[in-house]
Amino acid sequence: MKDHLPYGVARPRDGGPARCVARWGDSCLDLAGALGDDDLFDSPSLDAFMAAGPTAWDEVRGRLLDVVDRDAAPLLPVADVDLLLPWTPRDYVDFYAAEAHATNLGHMFRPGVEPLLPNWRHLPVGYHGRTATIVPSGAPVYRPQGLIPRLDDDDGPRLRPTAMLDVEVELGVVLGVGSQRGRPIPVDEAWDHIFGFALVNDWSARDIQAFEYQPLGPHLGKSFATSVSPWITPAAALRPHLVDGPPQDVADYLRVDAPRVLDIELALELNGTVLSRPNPRDLYWGPAQLVAHATVNGAAARTGDLYASGTISGWDRATFGSLIELTWRGRDEVVLHDGTIRTFLEDGDTVVISGRAGDVVLGEVAGRVEPLPLA
Amino acid sequence: MKDHLPYGVARPRDGGPARCVARWGDSCLDLAGALGDDDLFDSPSLDAFMAAGPTAWDEVRGRLLDVVDRDAAPLLPVADVDLLLPWTPRDYVDFYAAEAHATNLGHMFRPGVEPLLPNWRHLPVGYHGRTATIVPSGAPVYRPQGLIPRLDDDDGPRLRPTAMLDVEVELGVVLGVGSQRGRPIPVDEAWDHIFGFALVNDWSARDIQAFEYQPLGPHLGKSFATSVSPWITPAAALRPHLVDGPPQDVADYLRVDAPRVLDIELALELNGTVLSRPNPRDLYWGPAQLVAHATVNGAAARTGDLYASGTISGWDRATFGSLIELTWRGRDEVVLHDGTIRTFLEDGDTVVISGRAGDVVLGEVAGRVEPLPLA
Repeated sequence: MKDHLPYGVARPRDGGPARCVARWGDSCLDLAGALGDDDLFDSPSLDAFMAAGPTAWDEVRGRLLDVVDRDAAPLLPVADVDLLLPWTPRDYVDFYAAEAHATNLGHMFRPGVEPLLPNWRHLPVGYHGRTATIVPSGAPVYRPQGLIPRLDDDDGPRLRPTAMLDVEVELGVVLGVGSQRGRPIPVDEAWDHIFGFALVNDWSARDIQAFEYQPLGPHLGKSFATSVSPWITPAAALRPHLVDGPPQDVADYLRVDAPRVLDIELALELNGTVLSRPNPRDLYWGPAQLVAHATVNGAAARTGDLYASGTISGWDRATFGSLIELTWRGRDEVVLHDGTIRTFLEDGDTVVISGRAGDVVLGEVAGRVEPLPLA
Repeated sequence: MKDHLPYGVARPRDGGPARCVARWGDSCLDLAGALGDDDLFDSPSLDAFMAAGPTAWDEVRGRLLDVVDRDAAPLLPVADVDLLLPWTPRDYVDFYAAEAHATNLGHMFRPGVEPLLPNWRHLPVGYHGRTATIVPSGAPVYRPQGLIPRLDDDDGPRLRPTAMLDVEVELGVVLGVGSQRGRPIPVDEAWDHIFGFALVNDWSARDIQAFEYQPLGPHLGKSFATSVSPWITPAAALRPHLVDGPPQDVADYLRVDAPRVLDIELALELNGTVLSRPNPRDLYWGPAQLVAHATVNGAAARTGDLYASGTISGWDRATFGSLIELTWRGRDEVVLHDGTIRTFLEDGDTVVISGRAGDVVLGEVAGRVEPLPLA
């Protein structure tokens, strides 16, 4: 990731204070140190920089490239720091932007009817998620418990640890510049609001979700953890990787007459075995459309909002971004390098999502499953 | 509301700084002034006090009662201040805790099938709402636009201002003490986490909601505005008003063997005409159950979380807490004092929700409908 300078917040393991950094190869570049007295970086959070807007983003990026060109950068080895959640998440909306994923889940959750609901091609379906449980890569993920009915138990649903713990490979828009209530963000101005992108694992408990989700949508089946990459890739580094999406006939407020989805080679790894290679070019709705839709009703957006794509899956099984699709709700198995098999996740499992767009290597997001401490 | 000392944040209209206050009759008591050097109140937000926990809440309340008894309080007339949003909302979960409301909406949105879904009596169904648009009483509410199909339009859904703008009368738990990820809040400890209660109007656009909500729940039909009362009534003032709820047979983590719902006489007023008198004693799920449920999966809770009841409706039409129920989705009309009629809200309408539990008068929440500035 030498040339695209993703942003993060690092705390030196030797006890120094956390600070804003950009990644340069295997090193972290201290932003306050590199840029002098800039008060955009005087706290251990990217929030102020994110709010500063595209002119400031471009200017800082230019100055940083100059600093690294002159070898004048104060560097810390990445190996010597802990990477923290680099910004304050405000509202989090998780979309459902992949047609193959929505179709697959429709088949499984609502068998016998048309899998794609009537709204799906008209608007990016989505719901608000919990921000308290957005955690950085490396944070443990505790297996949630919830009310789950079981076929062999006539007593109805009981509180049990989930037996269907899953992952969702997603790409998340990290919003830089917010908007006022009553003033929708036009789709052709949305990129001026987008600070960058994180890889996202929206962990899901399918059995909890299946029982609870009607009619108001997912709640406890999702709210226990959402892991994000500690490096935010600047929007400027990814815009050259926009490609055409599937043809669509949509309302004006969602219309994009230009390449609208990102071409990024993602990989989903479980305990070191690559299970699939999703790509957000298979999404129906692109980043600008998600932002425009979330505000078209007059809702305000804020610095730090996270707009995630929803599970990225293509039509080919090798590109499915969740275990529920890869195993068709547990009917099939995936086989790992060590010969063990999985349908859903077991305690001790480690999941890593990584991504690359040409020379741009995105920061990976990893998480290990642990039992709920209480249990 | 002389004796229960609700908390708020007030900005004097003469230009002084905003500060934390308690209401005493028609006056605001400056908390930093009344309590001396307490750093709980050195910023214009209740956040620090909310996080301090029940011992601090009791102690401050005792000291304030002593101050007002001695007539030693620095007072500002309520008429001379603007009341601000008094805390920083973190996650916002809106529940669906009234059986009559869930039944009524089931009849309307899913005609011909059992109105109450199989999960409803087992757990408090709920979803996360948007926190960027939680606004204090008095803030204008902009009529949202969204994709809405119309029977007389074959071209499918179009971007239109909602024609079904509604209110939802709700009671909201404002969380004081949070919890760690992986550590659910036991239902019998939940009251130690509850700082107080706000009246909530969860404005809803029924036509936007009806088209978008499947399968992931409400999004733009709700996210444009949620109004809250500027006064937070301390939990200690309302706990004496707990009464038995409907009998229930629920999982241990939700079981409350004591009075569990609050008896508060609410009133829903449209342009000065009282439309209904809902009461949260008709809720099936009480405040402690909402908090326990939201964290049972290991999700963290935080100071400032808002857990709202969902529309409060009893079985009697005179207690319905929304226009969609009062007009049965627009089939019937409500008649106002001035002889005008409504099915849903018109621009210029003002809605006020107020409440009283014995001597405890809750802060009201008001909002006026305006067209979207853009339109």
